[in-house]
Amino acid sequence: MKNEALAMVFSEAEKPFHPLPVDLPLLSSGEALVEITYTTICTSDLHTFYGRRGAPTPSVLGHEVIGRIASLPENGVEDFYGEHLRIGDLVTWSVYAHNHAGEMACKGIPQKSTPLFKYGHERIEQNDVLSGGFATHCHLRKGTDIFKIPEGITAREAAPLNCTHATVAGAIRLAGDLSGKNVLVIGAGMLGISACAMAQYAEAKHVFAMDLDGRRAENSKRFGANTAIDAKLSSEEILQIIQPLGGIDVVIDTSGSAAAMEKGLAILNIGGISVWVGAVYSERNISLNAETVVRRILTIKGLHNYIPEDLSYAIKFLKATHMTYPFASLVETDLPLSKLDEAFKVANESGNYRVGITPN
Amino acid sequence: MKNEALAMVFSEAEKPFHPLPVDLPLLSSGEALVEITYTTICTSDLHTFYGRRGAPTPSVLGHEVIGRIASLPENGVEDFYGEHLRIGDLVTWSVYAHNHAGEMACKGIPQKSTPLFKYGHERIEQNDVLSGGFATHCHLRKGTDIFKIPEGITAREAAPLNCTHATVAGAIRLAGDLSGKNVLVIGAGMLGISACAMAQYAEAKHVFAMDLDGRRAENSKRFGANTAIDAKLSSEEILQIIQPLGGIDVVIDTSGSAAAMEKGLAILNIGGISVWVGAVYSERNISLNAETVVRRILTIKGLHNYIPEDLSYAIKFLKATHMTYPFASLVETDLPLSKLDEAFKVANESGNYRVGITPN
Repeated sequence: MKNEALAMVFSEAEKPFHPLPVDLPLLSSGEALVEITYTTICTSDLHTFYGRRGAPTPSVLGHEVIGRIASLPENGVEDFYGEHLRIGDLVTWSVYAHNHAGEMACKGIPQKSTPLFKYGHERIEQNDVLSGGFATHCHLRKGTDIFKIPEGITAREAAPLNCTHATVAGAIRLAGDLSGKNVLVIGAGMLGISACAMAQYAEAKHVFAMDLDGRRAENSKRFGANTAIDAKLSSEEILQIIQPLGGIDVVIDTSGSAAAMEKGLAILNIGGISVWVGAVYSERNISLNAETVVRRILTIKGLHNYIPEDLSYAIKFLKATHMTYPFASLVETDLPLSKLDEAFKVANESGNYRVGITPN
Repeated sequence: MKNEALAMVFSEAEKPFHPLPVDLPLLSSGEALVEITYTTICTSDLHTFYGRRGAPTPSVLGHEVIGRIASLPENGVEDFYGEHLRIGDLVTWSVYAHNHAGEMACKGIPQKSTPLFKYGHERIEQNDVLSGGFATHCHLRKGTDIFKIPEGITAREAAPLNCTHATVAGAIRLAGDLSGKNVLVIGAGMLGISACAMAQYAEAKHVFAMDLDGRRAENSKRFGANTAIDAKLSSEEILQIIQPLGGIDVVIDTSGSAAAMEKGLAILNIGGISVWVGAVYSERNISLNAETVVRRILTIKGLHNYIPEDLSYAIKFLKATHMTYPFASLVETDLPLSKLDEAFKVANESGNYRVGITPN
């Protein structure tokens, strides 16, 4: 094993990443060192890099990441299921480390624990650099839920597990039993495509995918969507499509668009539920008629990030479906870590679902 | 038993009720005839009578009603629990009759079944008059869930069971496990007072009651509220009261006020839930920031009416708490059926929580 790691440091919006060699960390109890094998550039990485949202700096971005266990402390580390990890195990992990006995964890919302260590979002310190995916190594902190990646799943498929698929698993959990229900997924980006596939996996009756980009909406049909809907249609026009098929029982919004979320509520069946996961950026407020919510017995649930059980579900989902749906095709380009600047440019300009980063 | 019943017919807003003698009905299978012993005037009766909302006419209003089984069909009728009812049993019943095998019942929202027979809301026909509480008798239709009233509960306590308390039981069901949680009840009318008491019954840690009417908010402290809050305070001022006590995990809105519901969302803890039951009249839309809903992992649930299991829970609640809370005091005036016009006037002008109607 090399004694040195290399991290690509983000300091300022649109400025080139700066390669920083660092010593490998000494591990404390409960920690692990991972040698990164693959990272995908998440849309939120792009938002940070292009200054569309604030972030602590300097930092090492990247959180959709997988790798092999490179070293462990003397007393070892267990995975999420309590099994001892071994050197060489291929793993993914929760995007945050938290205190499992803390107040928020006990409330069932560990992702809102204080303090919370978020991979790919931490301000780096002189001796504490390896906290993100755009590096050769990642230093997993105590309180990180670690999962072995099942055999047969490729790196391109696995990297988005701990962000995209786990968040969608959380949305599916909040939506409740989907079997026999009609589901509308709003937004057919990476999250939306995962939501279409996961709704099918959860035995939805009919899955509709809606996007302003007709090509993306159509593409979601390769991932379990039965019907693509143009988001530019009015609520009345959408109702004409969905009503003969039984309407919409569950909406999963991955778009964050106020207009789209309003449309989703307007077309929801009596007793329906709308789960919002996309609204993580500033938008106009939603105009909501409370009498409609009451008389139609509607539910709205917001979700930010996910709980470790969701990542567990996402892995089971991917293991069961990666031969059915062409998830690997969503990563259209790979570039090595040394070409991270170019990779961000491609990711931002190409409209690719994901761009992947390989070791140098 | 008399062979004739008398119903007080509502024909037009603010016009006197018209007494209509009718023959007692012949019962079909699954039906029952009840001799009414007590009815309370619900706020929704007032809304209808004073023309503040549309309703089918002519009709017999009144749905917060109890009575004794006066006759049964040859093969008898079972109560909600499958026990045979007997002549003389004191009962309450679901405010609607529905098909228990229908689509909406199977979806868990029987109150939205089609067709739905709603006591106190049906247009009367020549041979079908006894559908409301402001009459000597009520003709219970097939598909009505009937419950015996436990001994020891007075008429004043029992009449609001099948509307107020059952609806609140539905809200508590939607709110989930309340034990150890802080609950804010918005609106300290009949529904709000029931919600305070039922939140305590469900082992809430601290119950806050908020109303624009300080006297009503204070009065709710006789019914389980620990702290009264003036609804005219700003969100910031309310936070100063609630934060030292752990903030608000659950809001139950019985007010239907858009401003109050917005305030309820603004002060909700991360992971909190707001259940809306009061918004059954026209109001301005709510302005909702979806990013806040997502990042704070908030839930909003609307509820209209209730499911029969909620009425079952409400009866258990009242049986357990009627010696603790002075529910009978909420009915401040009784008048006989013959003075129904006067009773509506008193109910509308006095600000009494409820006015009761006794047989002539």
